[in-house]
Amino acid sequence: MDPALARLGEFGLIGLIRQRIQERTSGTIRGIGDDAAVLAADPGGDLLVTTDMLLEGIHFQRGWDCLRELGRKAMAVNVSDIAAMGGCPLYALLGLAMPAVGITLAEVEALLLGLEEEAATHGITLVGGDTCVSASGLVISVTLLGRSPRGGAVLRSGAKPGDWLWVTGGLGGAAAGLLALEQGFRPGQVWPATLSRPDWLGGEEEAAIQEALAAHLTPVPRLAAGRALQGIATAMIDVSDGVASDAGHLCTESRVAARIQASQIPIHRGAAVMARLLGREALDLALRGGEDYELLFAADSDPVPVLAEAAPTLPVTWVGEIIPGTPAPTLVHADGREEHLAGGFDHFRKAPPRSARTA
Amino acid sequence: MDPALARLGEFGLIGLIRQRIQERTSGTIRGIGDDAAVLAADPGGDLLVTTDMLLEGIHFQRGWDCLRELGRKAMAVNVSDIAAMGGCPLYALLGLAMPAVGITLAEVEALLLGLEEEAATHGITLVGGDTCVSASGLVISVTLLGRSPRGGAVLRSGAKPGDWLWVTGGLGGAAAGLLALEQGFRPGQVWPATLSRPDWLGGEEEAAIQEALAAHLTPVPRLAAGRALQGIATAMIDVSDGVASDAGHLCTESRVAARIQASQIPIHRGAAVMARLLGREALDLALRGGEDYELLFAADSDPVPVLAEAAPTLPVTWVGEIIPGTPAPTLVHADGREEHLAGGFDHFRKAPPRSARTA
Repeated sequence: MDPALARLGEFGLIGLIRQRIQERTSGTIRGIGDDAAVLAADPGGDLLVTTDMLLEGIHFQRGWDCLRELGRKAMAVNVSDIAAMGGCPLYALLGLAMPAVGITLAEVEALLLGLEEEAATHGITLVGGDTCVSASGLVISVTLLGRSPRGGAVLRSGAKPGDWLWVTGGLGGAAAGLLALEQGFRPGQVWPATLSRPDWLGGEEEAAIQEALAAHLTPVPRLAAGRALQGIATAMIDVSDGVASDAGHLCTESRVAARIQASQIPIHRGAAVMARLLGREALDLALRGGEDYELLFAADSDPVPVLAEAAPTLPVTWVGEIIPGTPAPTLVHADGREEHLAGGFDHFRKAPPRSARTA
Repeated sequence: MDPALARLGEFGLIGLIRQRIQERTSGTIRGIGDDAAVLAADPGGDLLVTTDMLLEGIHFQRGWDCLRELGRKAMAVNVSDIAAMGGCPLYALLGLAMPAVGITLAEVEALLLGLEEEAATHGITLVGGDTCVSASGLVISVTLLGRSPRGGAVLRSGAKPGDWLWVTGGLGGAAAGLLALEQGFRPGQVWPATLSRPDWLGGEEEAAIQEALAAHLTPVPRLAAGRALQGIATAMIDVSDGVASDAGHLCTESRVAARIQASQIPIHRGAAVMARLLGREALDLALRGGEDYELLFAADSDPVPVLAEAAPTLPVTWVGEIIPGTPAPTLVHADGREEHLAGGFDHFRKAPPRSARTA
């Protein structure tokens, strides 16, 4: 263990975290420093709660990800879940298991800095957690509490036949970013020495690859869009496993089918470039790559005006429709051919998990 | 990966968890199956929230612990935190990272069974979580939400000079149980073949060792006692790192000192037996072993009558007093000698962490 971290000790680190964090919510009766956090109940709202773990060797490699970016992502993926409920995040808890060797106090500080940066962006207060040593890799487990107006949370289960299906942003960017990392690309760096550069690839394509890296390393949860969609979206989910899988979850919970138009899928420009570079199919990255943290939602009225107001720079694309039938999505190709849409990321079925994420 | 688990897939497992769990609270608007759980706010109470991780190779060895017992413990250690606030647990989230090789569906089912058993004991509903694959060992992260009457949570920070210091149950049992596991003892099994049995050790001592194993593997959170102490305890903490460390936390948060009488420390009879067997000091196991999950609390009135009513079979022992001074506990020996009481379990300072727990 890093001598600075060992000197600090477990309780010294908790003290350091307490110093670093800022209070951003009014309901904290007792934050870090007790057996449990004590929070004022919000009588006008419902409580939202979600948890997501990031594990070294599965969700990230320490060689790839700057710890500050990883801290941001660990918070952001949870914020994305609250966004997909149309809610507002309030309080976070951090579970942190650190490898006994190979992590430094400076890295832990960078991780905390990233967590706090993301928390600050969304007005979240860190109110508790758990720190321990890991016998293997770094484990970051964030639990996020939020609120929605009473009865106002947007569930996965409200889609009805006749609703349109929409998605925010571009898809496949995070998967392309992961492929780029595997090929040696790094944020802000020049072309990897080990990779030959094709003639067609210019400055614009390089910029697109950098955007894909950012999509993977520091996803931006669609919080403003999610909140604006409360009362408009009949069902909503964040795209964490890929539209193929996540549209399936929405269909299953709503007991409806869906037809998704392949030509309508908004492909992230970084996904298009990486697909061409590696001889992959861009549509496959967009449908099955996962980790885009965009919002996929059904609506029976036009969401465009409200999103143009709430999230003016965020594209929103019509991708299909909700129909009656066996709860599963169908992909409709431009030539009219239809296929059962399946095969988003499943942690148990693919090995090694990380590189399989885009397989 | 176990073929049965791979066949089930990540979402199949989530479906199985959904089937297995029971609804035990009235406020669940939406449990497992969405981006976040949706819970009715409790306008008459404050919200309590805590999280604790158990990691393979740190908190447990899969060879030692039956997965069912591990499931119970993962829930129980969080319940203990709610107990130490004088609160009532309500909702749990489960983060589960499973090794890609070496864990079977049957083991995962046993783990879930144990979690549900402990949840049933305390009226808790599992409302969400996260499942993924681990590149190394099993990781179990439980987050628990609970309630306390508004303004009624018992913090660590309320102890005042003149308060008495009390502890429930016996101490050192969990540490003794861990030593017993390391020596080859197993629940319900005969004497380990590799260990010679001394003459003084009879049936009563064997029973005490079995109790120590149970104290380590399936700790019993002191929920009824904790709730009864609301309004009586001025400050409370659960004994997870050992009284030496946890009394220090209570002193630090309350800005008081404490004098603890060594002769008053209630030593678990399994700790006494294992200490004699291994040439260790029983008092050291009781003060620094950790994981007993008893309640250490300060009070300015007599807690015995109320505890006799709420938890009639649970011993409660006066162990010392709160005094003004530098926020740290002092241990007073029978001969009047005093020593600074320090050295509970610190995850960062001792390696290897597990065997160091009782060092």
